[in-house]
Amino acid sequence: MDSTFRRTPNIHLQDLINGLLQGNRIFLSRAITLVESKRADDKVASAELVDKILNTERKTLRIGITGVPGVGKSTFIESFGKMLTEKGKKVAVLSIDPSSNRSKGSILGDKTRMDELSKDPNAFIRPSASGSSLGGVASSTRESILLCEAAGFDVIIIETVGVGQSETIVKDMVDYFLLLMLAGGGDELQGIKRGIMEMADHILINKADNDNLKAAKHAKDDYWNAVHLFPPNDADWVVPVGLCSALEKNGIEEVWSEIENYQSHTAKNGWFEENRKRQAIKWFHERIHARLEEIFYSKPMIKEEIKKREELISSQKLSVRKAVEELFNS
Amino acid sequence: MDSTFRRTPNIHLQDLINGLLQGNRIFLSRAITLVESKRADDKVASAELVDKILNTERKTLRIGITGVPGVGKSTFIESFGKMLTEKGKKVAVLSIDPSSNRSKGSILGDKTRMDELSKDPNAFIRPSASGSSLGGVASSTRESILLCEAAGFDVIIIETVGVGQSETIVKDMVDYFLLLMLAGGGDELQGIKRGIMEMADHILINKADNDNLKAAKHAKDDYWNAVHLFPPNDADWVVPVGLCSALEKNGIEEVWSEIENYQSHTAKNGWFEENRKRQAIKWFHERIHARLEEIFYSKPMIKEEIKKREELISSQKLSVRKAVEELFNS
Repeated sequence: MDSTFRRTPNIHLQDLINGLLQGNRIFLSRAITLVESKRADDKVASAELVDKILNTERKTLRIGITGVPGVGKSTFIESFGKMLTEKGKKVAVLSIDPSSNRSKGSILGDKTRMDELSKDPNAFIRPSASGSSLGGVASSTRESILLCEAAGFDVIIIETVGVGQSETIVKDMVDYFLLLMLAGGGDELQGIKRGIMEMADHILINKADNDNLKAAKHAKDDYWNAVHLFPPNDADWVVPVGLCSALEKNGIEEVWSEIENYQSHTAKNGWFEENRKRQAIKWFHERIHARLEEIFYSKPMIKEEIKKREELISSQKLSVRKAVEELFNS
Repeated sequence: MDSTFRRTPNIHLQDLINGLLQGNRIFLSRAITLVESKRADDKVASAELVDKILNTERKTLRIGITGVPGVGKSTFIESFGKMLTEKGKKVAVLSIDPSSNRSKGSILGDKTRMDELSKDPNAFIRPSASGSSLGGVASSTRESILLCEAAGFDVIIIETVGVGQSETIVKDMVDYFLLLMLAGGGDELQGIKRGIMEMADHILINKADNDNLKAAKHAKDDYWNAVHLFPPNDADWVVPVGLCSALEKNGIEEVWSEIENYQSHTAKNGWFEENRKRQAIKWFHERIHARLEEIFYSKPMIKEEIKKREELISSQKLSVRKAVEELFNS
């Protein structure tokens, strides 16, 4: 749908901004499409757009949710999102999907499965940003968050499939990072990338229902013991390990109250604000580096020159230092 | 001592290379000092030096060792290193010390404490590289590894204090990453950065002696349960969790036999070679990026321009995209 709107010529940026600020979801979609665009003219417009809608007043919450395919992310987001809209919150769901195969674990597929939520007037579900580089996707997702917040959404959920580098990227753009797990602690974990468990602000064992309940309780104890071997995280937050059944809507309220605890805890110790500032500045430097690389790699023949040297380096025929000298002298 | 040799004018690069290849430790020290130098002329010489001594024949082993100050790294390295030299191995010990306070946990201090090893003709202990950027230190340490290997050392131990970003950097330059821990699993862990436990190829609980033994055995079980909740690492290696007393020289042999298991395991599945190739290519790209930044940040006023925008960004008065545009258009 967005793509049909995308090239509408006769829409002025100011109209787009006005529509967005009024919370019009069609305009929000258009705005997101604009910041995702790689066209030079769109980039100029995007810079102006994003700069004009920076929200300094409203308090918002950015929640990252990850877990292997099959853990029940979309079912959880459906139940969790509905609970929030019933509390009068406006909820936006974005996703970062590193998989090139868009059908696999893509929120495009999830959208139809998030049936109730997608019909909810207080919810906004956006198919995952696609892009050549994960960094580019990350950057447009960060801007999409700002756009959703400008459009009046209170809780922004960023979903990702817990199998790639995307978790680190999501961790860097959210206030709270929720890891969905399955009982067993064995094979189900295989898909999860190492290090993710230590990134989580909350570990939630889903599908804690029926025959699965006993195993889920056991897994809960295991994870509790494991995460409490780790030192406290930067937020000085004791990571909760909980059970839920997204299907039976059990344990969803508890997740929200933990998040509220986290908000007041990090408001008190100042981490919430500090973390957002850090994230923004880190993002700024990432974009500077990305731009530097863009310029460098756009040089003619540079890719071939690098490839050639990579082979010499891995066969130990060329030292890294010499290779870099050669590259920058040529 | 190195500094007195450093500016000896009448030494030709070829003499340095010859002395180095003969395993002369004085020449090795000089060579390391050269690659650590930031002087333009030294950089040219370094590129030639490092390029000429690339070792393609001899099999060597690079071991990273980390742990909080007080865990007993130097006592362990002393016992472990002596055991290796008694096996006829030549052992070099380098360190990456991010702490600006050189006396704290610095191997300069350790050198005197590694009393036996520093006197051993088959051992070489090098004070930690200092430098403005951790990346720069890392790069010269990588080159120091190559120099030690060219000088005939079989096992290169890279020590770091497990409190900074240096672990990731060390992990990227070694074949095997050993994490030293203390019993208790509580307060002792505070200093260790999150994520390190999942980087380790081997977790070793030191000071497993006397009154501490019971607690150490308990900690061993806890860590074993914890690390085995993680999925297998890239080497498809089951991370051993062991006990040792560096002081009483217990459990040192066991560490070595585990490392030998790792070597044959990763030789079979090809990870050993693949990992070294990956590390070298990653390093190459890191140096390219570092050089790009050097060039960029050397521009007049650029630091002020960035600083100014960082403040606007963290107070949400300027968008990251606009800030980057401004920087690159100015």
